[in-house]
Amino acid sequence: MPHALGRIAAERVDAPEALPAFARSTMDGFAVRAAETYGASDSAPAYLRLAGEVAMGRVARDPLEVGTAQRIHTGAMLPPLADAVVIVEDTTLRGSELEVLRAVAPGDNAVAVGEDVGAGEPIVCAGRELRAQDLGALHAAGVTALRVRRRPVVGILSSGDEVVAPDAATPLGAVRDVNAVTVGATVERAGGIPRYLGIVPDDEARLFAAARAGLEACDALVLSAGSSVSARDLTARVVERLGPPGILVHGIALRPGKPTILAVAAGKPVVGLPGNPVSALVVAWRMVRPMVRLLAGASLASGGWDEDRTLDVRLTATVPSRPGREDYVPVALRRAADGALEATPVFGKSSLIFTLVRSDALLVVPLDLAGYAAGSVAKAIVT
Amino acid sequence: MPHALGRIAAERVDAPEALPAFARSTMDGFAVRAAETYGASDSAPAYLRLAGEVAMGRVARDPLEVGTAQRIHTGAMLPPLADAVVIVEDTTLRGSELEVLRAVAPGDNAVAVGEDVGAGEPIVCAGRELRAQDLGALHAAGVTALRVRRRPVVGILSSGDEVVAPDAATPLGAVRDVNAVTVGATVERAGGIPRYLGIVPDDEARLFAAARAGLEACDALVLSAGSSVSARDLTARVVERLGPPGILVHGIALRPGKPTILAVAAGKPVVGLPGNPVSALVVAWRMVRPMVRLLAGASLASGGWDEDRTLDVRLTATVPSRPGREDYVPVALRRAADGALEATPVFGKSSLIFTLVRSDALLVVPLDLAGYAAGSVAKAIVT
Repeated sequence: MPHALGRIAAERVDAPEALPAFARSTMDGFAVRAAETYGASDSAPAYLRLAGEVAMGRVARDPLEVGTAQRIHTGAMLPPLADAVVIVEDTTLRGSELEVLRAVAPGDNAVAVGEDVGAGEPIVCAGRELRAQDLGALHAAGVTALRVRRRPVVGILSSGDEVVAPDAATPLGAVRDVNAVTVGATVERAGGIPRYLGIVPDDEARLFAAARAGLEACDALVLSAGSSVSARDLTARVVERLGPPGILVHGIALRPGKPTILAVAAGKPVVGLPGNPVSALVVAWRMVRPMVRLLAGASLASGGWDEDRTLDVRLTATVPSRPGREDYVPVALRRAADGALEATPVFGKSSLIFTLVRSDALLVVPLDLAGYAAGSVAKAIVT
Repeated sequence: MPHALGRIAAERVDAPEALPAFARSTMDGFAVRAAETYGASDSAPAYLRLAGEVAMGRVARDPLEVGTAQRIHTGAMLPPLADAVVIVEDTTLRGSELEVLRAVAPGDNAVAVGEDVGAGEPIVCAGRELRAQDLGALHAAGVTALRVRRRPVVGILSSGDEVVAPDAATPLGAVRDVNAVTVGATVERAGGIPRYLGIVPDDEARLFAAARAGLEACDALVLSAGSSVSARDLTARVVERLGPPGILVHGIALRPGKPTILAVAAGKPVVGLPGNPVSALVVAWRMVRPMVRLLAGASLASGGWDEDRTLDVRLTATVPSRPGREDYVPVALRRAADGALEATPVFGKSSLIFTLVRSDALLVVPLDLAGYAAGSVAKAIVT
């Protein structure tokens, strides 16, 4: 069951029984009949006879006789005919005579049967990303196994005559594949399983064969093409050949990340990422991540409140932007003396992965804004 | 290397070489000597002779002769003596005669050697929680393995005469262990490995033996005691006997979660959690989580910006609180029509785990506030 943490429930699980299964004290004190404490106060205590103690973890078998109280500890079962608990601080015990200094109402300092959850009520619904408290509630109900959704497998295919594997010899002029591991990490963080399909040169036949095989073997395919126009055109042709309906979106109002391809083939999503490492990772965060969560079966209302991990930050410098596109600017964060999070832009070309390494978050400049002035408060997404 | 995602770097890793290792075009266009384009404009183009094309992924061997340009694609190596790239949109090609319609300065549309990272500069520092971009940068530098910190093992020991294992028969009067799995999940999410040490009855000798063995076998110990005063006293006695310095803090200004014990024994942290499931999980989030991250070796400045996963929420109801303690109130979230996150308190006793199941976040009422009025904007921690 601990293995279910972070997985998506594939089924609704209902409570097989009411919880708590018995009325229980929430305090240390004395189980009473509430009516017998009415009007009790410091100056006019109610008097009860102490008649035993309820053992922890056992059935409280002895009914509470009229005029008596039973000692009870937090979590213990209320004896039959008791309907409230007087906390120990509100009593004085003299021998077996209990002075109750404060009245209680029925239900005081106790939880009733089914107050946590009723029999047949749902503990988790299908699509719920299982959190610590969900596992706790399942355990509380005695449910120690449940069906979870399979993690979607996302194929990651790199292409480019200049791209080599990170552990291969890298002749001058070549670059090592960065996008495979960054996209793979994003897929994994979103709850998917990355499958690394290797690197293919800029050759349509070979790229198509690799893409088709990858799409067949996986639940979705992400292509990371080179960033030249010809490499992008090649990717578009290959994606279009994978089958109908093909490319749905070619180019998005995002910066960096404009030359993104969103497509569907064989009923599976296909994403063509820009080749620049920063662009590729920004698009992976904004497009691939929600795609993976949807494929994973996460319901949109479940566990998604912090999907963007958005912080309010105060800018230390002016950030220009062009209206008409959503701009993502890497920023380094620092806690200022007044407690605010200060964000300093880390400017750099989108081919430079270290602009992201040196930053803590991405400042978001919305579509319709021409940037932010220094001192503005804006949203940033933790990366 | 993908396995390093989310792990803590145990060592600083420096770039073995400058990146990029060669000057590279960032656009599709023509490699030029910038000086030969000075003053170029639509009305007064500079004229250059096209002298070949730079192949992707290869060394650009042919130096750029005076008065010439070489076709170049994004990511390709600048030829010797070229110092800038004119983008294709700013040119007209007639046969082998290239009209340059806009001047470029040295370095335009290109990245220089070392512009991403210099040789010997750090890629990651010890204590960095490895993110997608860190793995990408390591790959860019050809580093495909690094030492990461061992994940700390946190022993989780439950106690209470009334507590039974979730998969065991549960006689009336007993309750199933909820805290082990919720604390375990919190430990795991924080980067630790939970080790479940089972359930011990309220017996000092047995609890002490189990705690001592657990502390020896693990890097830290979390005890989840019953919530009665006697069970808490028992836990305190056992923790004190584990060795010096013993209990450092007994009782914190947190609600729920006041009867928390923070201790050190044998150089290892020991936490005594309140028994109520809600209290235990709130304290696990606020105390155990940062403890695990510290034990894991995460530097405080690394990856910790969103540790609290804090959101700004607007309250739909008044939340009372008593000044002098930090109050955590479960809230359900809903996106309002105006885009704000609306938080509705889920009131319930701290023995009821379903108050957390039915909530999305914990509203934080700071120490010095007497609650929030309906309509206030406040901080909530996503759970």
